[in-house]
Amino acid sequence: MTPNIFFSRRIRKTPFEDRVYEQGVKGFTVYNQMPLATSYTTVEDDYWHLREHVQLWDVACERQVEVRGPDALKLIQLSTPRDISKCAIGQCVYAPLCDEDGGIVNDPLLLRFADDHFWVSIADSGVLLWLKGLAAGLSLDVEVSDPDIGPCALQGPKADAVMQSLLDIDVHTIKFFRFVEVELAGVAVVVARSGWSGQGGYEIYLKNASHGLALWDAIWEAGEAHDIRAGCPNLIERIESGLLSYGNDMTNDNNIFECGLDRFITLGKQADYLSREALDKISRDGTTIKLVNLEFDGGPTPPLRATWPVYAGDEQAGILTSAAWSPRLERNIAFASVGIEYANTGQALGVKPAGEPATREATVVPPWRGS
Amino acid sequence: MTPNIFFSRRIRKTPFEDRVYEQGVKGFTVYNQMPLATSYTTVEDDYWHLREHVQLWDVACERQVEVRGPDALKLIQLSTPRDISKCAIGQCVYAPLCDEDGGIVNDPLLLRFADDHFWVSIADSGVLLWLKGLAAGLSLDVEVSDPDIGPCALQGPKADAVMQSLLDIDVHTIKFFRFVEVELAGVAVVVARSGWSGQGGYEIYLKNASHGLALWDAIWEAGEAHDIRAGCPNLIERIESGLLSYGNDMTNDNNIFECGLDRFITLGKQADYLSREALDKISRDGTTIKLVNLEFDGGPTPPLRATWPVYAGDEQAGILTSAAWSPRLERNIAFASVGIEYANTGQALGVKPAGEPATREATVVPPWRGS
Repeated sequence: MTPNIFFSRRIRKTPFEDRVYEQGVKGFTVYNQMPLATSYTTVEDDYWHLREHVQLWDVACERQVEVRGPDALKLIQLSTPRDISKCAIGQCVYAPLCDEDGGIVNDPLLLRFADDHFWVSIADSGVLLWLKGLAAGLSLDVEVSDPDIGPCALQGPKADAVMQSLLDIDVHTIKFFRFVEVELAGVAVVVARSGWSGQGGYEIYLKNASHGLALWDAIWEAGEAHDIRAGCPNLIERIESGLLSYGNDMTNDNNIFECGLDRFITLGKQADYLSREALDKISRDGTTIKLVNLEFDGGPTPPLRATWPVYAGDEQAGILTSAAWSPRLERNIAFASVGIEYANTGQALGVKPAGEPATREATVVPPWRGS
Repeated sequence: MTPNIFFSRRIRKTPFEDRVYEQGVKGFTVYNQMPLATSYTTVEDDYWHLREHVQLWDVACERQVEVRGPDALKLIQLSTPRDISKCAIGQCVYAPLCDEDGGIVNDPLLLRFADDHFWVSIADSGVLLWLKGLAAGLSLDVEVSDPDIGPCALQGPKADAVMQSLLDIDVHTIKFFRFVEVELAGVAVVVARSGWSGQGGYEIYLKNASHGLALWDAIWEAGEAHDIRAGCPNLIERIESGLLSYGNDMTNDNNIFECGLDRFITLGKQADYLSREALDKISRDGTTIKLVNLEFDGGPTPPLRATWPVYAGDEQAGILTSAAWSPRLERNIAFASVGIEYANTGQALGVKPAGEPATREATVVPPWRGS
């Protein structure tokens, strides 16, 4: 028998949760102490629909950490090696947050509303308390809070058509990773061209959580002509699109060089940020492991509960961190963290799924995006 | 249909998880990004068994934040208004952590191993990153980490008998909230007389997670003569015992005066800790709300998904934060956060459970512990 899930007040209710149940959610996980759907039909069927049509996702678990005040930019800039002075008002930037040891704390999207006002749209870790701790330790003049701003996402190739029917402005004026503050069906929202899939679309940030169902229903109604369905971040699609999951593919034990995210170090050598010394040192010394794309033989596997070992001959070469059977590519696709000597494209490796007696043949491959 | 739960690597696997499934876990929640069982039979049946026999709980989700180094005591002391200089080596103390606004960050047990070595055994919030942020901001010489130390708990009136059959020392020499470092069935552990129930017992901290099943099996075997069962923190028992749940009964929006935890302010007026100014001010000004024990009429209710409103006549007087039907007391028992003017014992109030058309009559009552 499958155990039930039990959500109390401690797992914050999302503004859209009633609709998630009404749409027949099949699975849940917990993310930032909030529920997150994992499928509505099967992961595979959700995948095909996302690639062809449009889906409405409850991603309120992408909590917003709000940073306001005279030292807001200073605090944000301390937390990341990405140059935030280049982030315009109305822009979103992907900015890995790194601690003083170079470890990744989170990989959020930053939204800049004003010189002294940011949202940090977080992956699953305690960024609120980290930024509060940093600010308190440094006596910064800044307010760090966790307002109940529940994002939903509209993702898929038909997202533009649905959004256009809801807004007065031409949606093509909203460029990639830019946002506008508008009313949608009378509800005050922030609409950004962004989202955790490679299929295009929007994230819609609900400023007042009590209007969640009205917002959901308005988008749903506009989507009915376009085969809209309830959906959620899709394991197959996100691996194909090269989207890393914090907590799965990288943790606080990893640095951004190991994960191929060092291109986001855009601050100069003289800049003052928390991880500078550590990242400088790692840059000089190099890393011993690297995150790679992997394909492996055989049919679909059960989902990973934890990492699986990756072998080079009899030696353990690393760990597999996420995997899915792609019904389109007709193979298993995965991310793995392996020794740097095994990280070249074409490297032959072995993967041992939990509960299987033998290893399966695996190969390091280029990104699937666009394939 | 009940949605499934989906745990990936991001929800860290516990050292005892295989046994939790083998023992027929009926429900799960997620706590500190780890699974936590919520029942094995029914919450009511688990309750009776816990009060009469002994249970083994997988509470690895009570993660240990380890603080080591020359500034360890300084960092710990900054984080709480409780005087930690009085915590002896080998002692555990309950110490609410408070931020610079006086808000509760967590309510952990602190374990002191040496002058420069503590474990913070945490409730469900990001204490790791909070202490790391504080330490980085203050440039403290300290290492804050999250070792994979999985506690299990042995709780219930027969816990002493089971533990005695496993240890060479007289278990009565382990006093309340004291711990010893020992080997149990060849596994290195820390055994503390503590636990999240009012029934007495131990928490056993596994230092090396790979020995989890060996530890579980050894305790289980010793318990079979005492009707041992797998169990978990029990909603009914913990409310009766007056144990507050962080995230449910109190959040970062609450201060320790509101929750009746101000007796843990044991530092003097001149001491230097993060929340001192804020707590001094709250102490002078008083609070507007207070957490109370509440009983309400009618039969059992479905579990709370979120808070329920509490009324005084037609006025909203506060929120109900946790509730359970006590089969022993034959009434609904609850915690509620209400306006200070409604917080006196005997105050008549109304509770409106979600989905019910009418309010139920309620009364503020003294603690149930011992009743």
